[in-house]
Amino acid sequence: MVKISMLSTGEEVLHGDIVDTNASWLSEVFFEHGFALNYRSTVGDQLDELRDEIISLSERNDVVIVNGGLGPTSDDLSALAAAQAAGVELKLSQHWLDTITEYFSRINRPMADSNIKQAMLPEGASVIDNPVGTACGFSIELNGAMVMFTPGVPFEFKKMVRDEILPKLKLCFPNVKRLVCNKIYTFGLGESGIADALSSLDIPEAFSLGYRSYMPFIEVKVFSPHSDSNIEMVLTAITERLKNYVLGINQPLIDVIGEGLTNKQWQLSILEQVTGGEVARQMYQSERSQQSFVQSVVDNQAEPLAELSDAILLNNEYRLETQSHACLANFKLEDGSIGLALSSQLGNYAQNIMFKRDYPIKAQQVLIATVLLDMLRRHMNGESPSIEFGHFETLSTIEKTDECR
Amino acid sequence: MVKISMLSTGEEVLHGDIVDTNASWLSEVFFEHGFALNYRSTVGDQLDELRDEIISLSERNDVVIVNGGLGPTSDDLSALAAAQAAGVELKLSQHWLDTITEYFSRINRPMADSNIKQAMLPEGASVIDNPVGTACGFSIELNGAMVMFTPGVPFEFKKMVRDEILPKLKLCFPNVKRLVCNKIYTFGLGESGIADALSSLDIPEAFSLGYRSYMPFIEVKVFSPHSDSNIEMVLTAITERLKNYVLGINQPLIDVIGEGLTNKQWQLSILEQVTGGEVARQMYQSERSQQSFVQSVVDNQAEPLAELSDAILLNNEYRLETQSHACLANFKLEDGSIGLALSSQLGNYAQNIMFKRDYPIKAQQVLIATVLLDMLRRHMNGESPSIEFGHFETLSTIEKTDECR
Repeated sequence: MVKISMLSTGEEVLHGDIVDTNASWLSEVFFEHGFALNYRSTVGDQLDELRDEIISLSERNDVVIVNGGLGPTSDDLSALAAAQAAGVELKLSQHWLDTITEYFSRINRPMADSNIKQAMLPEGASVIDNPVGTACGFSIELNGAMVMFTPGVPFEFKKMVRDEILPKLKLCFPNVKRLVCNKIYTFGLGESGIADALSSLDIPEAFSLGYRSYMPFIEVKVFSPHSDSNIEMVLTAITERLKNYVLGINQPLIDVIGEGLTNKQWQLSILEQVTGGEVARQMYQSERSQQSFVQSVVDNQAEPLAELSDAILLNNEYRLETQSHACLANFKLEDGSIGLALSSQLGNYAQNIMFKRDYPIKAQQVLIATVLLDMLRRHMNGESPSIEFGHFETLSTIEKTDECR
Repeated sequence: MVKISMLSTGEEVLHGDIVDTNASWLSEVFFEHGFALNYRSTVGDQLDELRDEIISLSERNDVVIVNGGLGPTSDDLSALAAAQAAGVELKLSQHWLDTITEYFSRINRPMADSNIKQAMLPEGASVIDNPVGTACGFSIELNGAMVMFTPGVPFEFKKMVRDEILPKLKLCFPNVKRLVCNKIYTFGLGESGIADALSSLDIPEAFSLGYRSYMPFIEVKVFSPHSDSNIEMVLTAITERLKNYVLGINQPLIDVIGEGLTNKQWQLSILEQVTGGEVARQMYQSERSQQSFVQSVVDNQAEPLAELSDAILLNNEYRLETQSHACLANFKLEDGSIGLALSSQLGNYAQNIMFKRDYPIKAQQVLIATVLLDMLRRHMNGESPSIEFGHFETLSTIEKTDECR
């Protein structure tokens, strides 16, 4: 097994001014390509500590990815630390100086003297191309390890990893096999609930599961060798066990909705009294769903409804008024519950719910939006729109399939 | 100076399934309290590697914070690794067993056998209380360092750090002084632009600056000793240099807007054709601004306007229709630009803008929402609403202060 570590550098990372998303991104991408990290560390902009950490990591690993510290300013010390670690001098890379000189003339801006520093590399280092920035990536060999230096700007970093570093690693370690990752998007079960539901599952030895949880979804990641013929079977087995909690496979809910609306040639309108535009925002931000989205009204100071049946009436009215095929709505009710309504050519549905605990307002909006969109998903699938989720209690439901115009 | 490191544990962190926000949070909070981290590392759930890293960090630091691995399952190995590092056995903490037994009976759920594992601590360890979970925090002394073990669940972790660990550190290191952090919220200048603008600034020696950048804002953080009388002077000097780019001091833009609307007793409506509900969502999610927010319409499939003056007319009309004191709106224009309009009792304003580069749709929405809200902020301050920002070009502006009803 290849031993790989990552070193993140910079005071802004070490002191929490930025969340180190480069580290989690690299960890995830490398894992999916079969190059799981076995250690990560973070140091600030102290030359000694940088140098010592580079040496220490090179002694314990086959590959070390160093991120950050390649900028033009005086606190960017990675190249110097690399040179000291390797016991060599910094030397001008004429190739890189030409590259960035040309870059600045192309964008018609003067090159600052400080940028010359970005072409100073440890003697013997190989350049790793950065087509989208002035920071030169480079690689040195140290204590038998390949130590690769990458820029901190996420966009430049990711491009360099994808286009340069991963191909290089695959060449050097041809036996490492890329994993396939299938993603099952779930909603309404906690991580332990999912683990319980899947505990009796027998998956083939070459398979492994991972979880990625981000409000409001938990993604179940199914890793397997590329060629394995059991993939479909495993996905089906997991989906069956998680049933109603699965909102999409390899596709997030909002894209499932977009695809469903497109297939049905339906246009959707939205009326929001408790979600402040969250449903509209989600519809708008997915390219797949945006084109099927007509109009939304966010009515923040509406009076609460007396009855859940009012939700049915108002929502049906709004659908007809906006001449859309389907309409999703949420309302405040006088009893303090939240009314969720779906109206389409095929029927009118509503349910009112109460949260089981006190979620922050942002979380409430996202949870309600998710349930509403899932009602539509189920409806388009020919299923009953309302089901129970863990976050709240359903007080009552109404289904009217006869009165639609 | 106290040397402090943090060790994050767990495969889910190491393989990028979760972003390590506990690490950035701890780094920031510790920094603000005068306990800057000097090193962070991450290892997976391998007992040997955990044990070795705990030993190695204890040799190089005064304080080590270990996060994660205190759960009930077999891959939660932190207590065992701690015991091995210290050369002692795990021993049942009757105190903690009683605590969690009582906890489960209080929430009326049976305690699983696996939870007993959470009361097994290294011999000689002192319990660190966790009033909100079943994972027991604990502290051991190792190689002269104080090594403290904390749960991975962010909510539990943060509570333990605030209520238990920081007070303990302050007792042990009474000479470490907490810094005051004042935050200046800026928009429209990059980090290098801000650094340039502030490069000639002379700040007192005990002061330091930090930057925290998150779309679309860059926060300038001004750290200083608590008692320093120069704070106001420094904040004023920075604000003067950054002028129009400062949207709030110690208060994000949306709260500034909320406060302004409340002071003026204004109610706001919003009409969105290009931001898909983003402005409404921001207004809704801030407690300060929510109460001043009447209604919003998101019209996703509206025809583009021929003229910027149409934006003035439509927006003024919408304001009168919704009987609100002010209305913000954005429109598509036929020439491909984006029209931003502000209507209030005091006047009608519009400008149309073009992005200078190709932003993702999410970023576009956030940028447009920010400029619109800033137009309102400036207007409420008695300033001209439209100014130039770096992200886009302003093609034309209209100001009409005479025709308002």
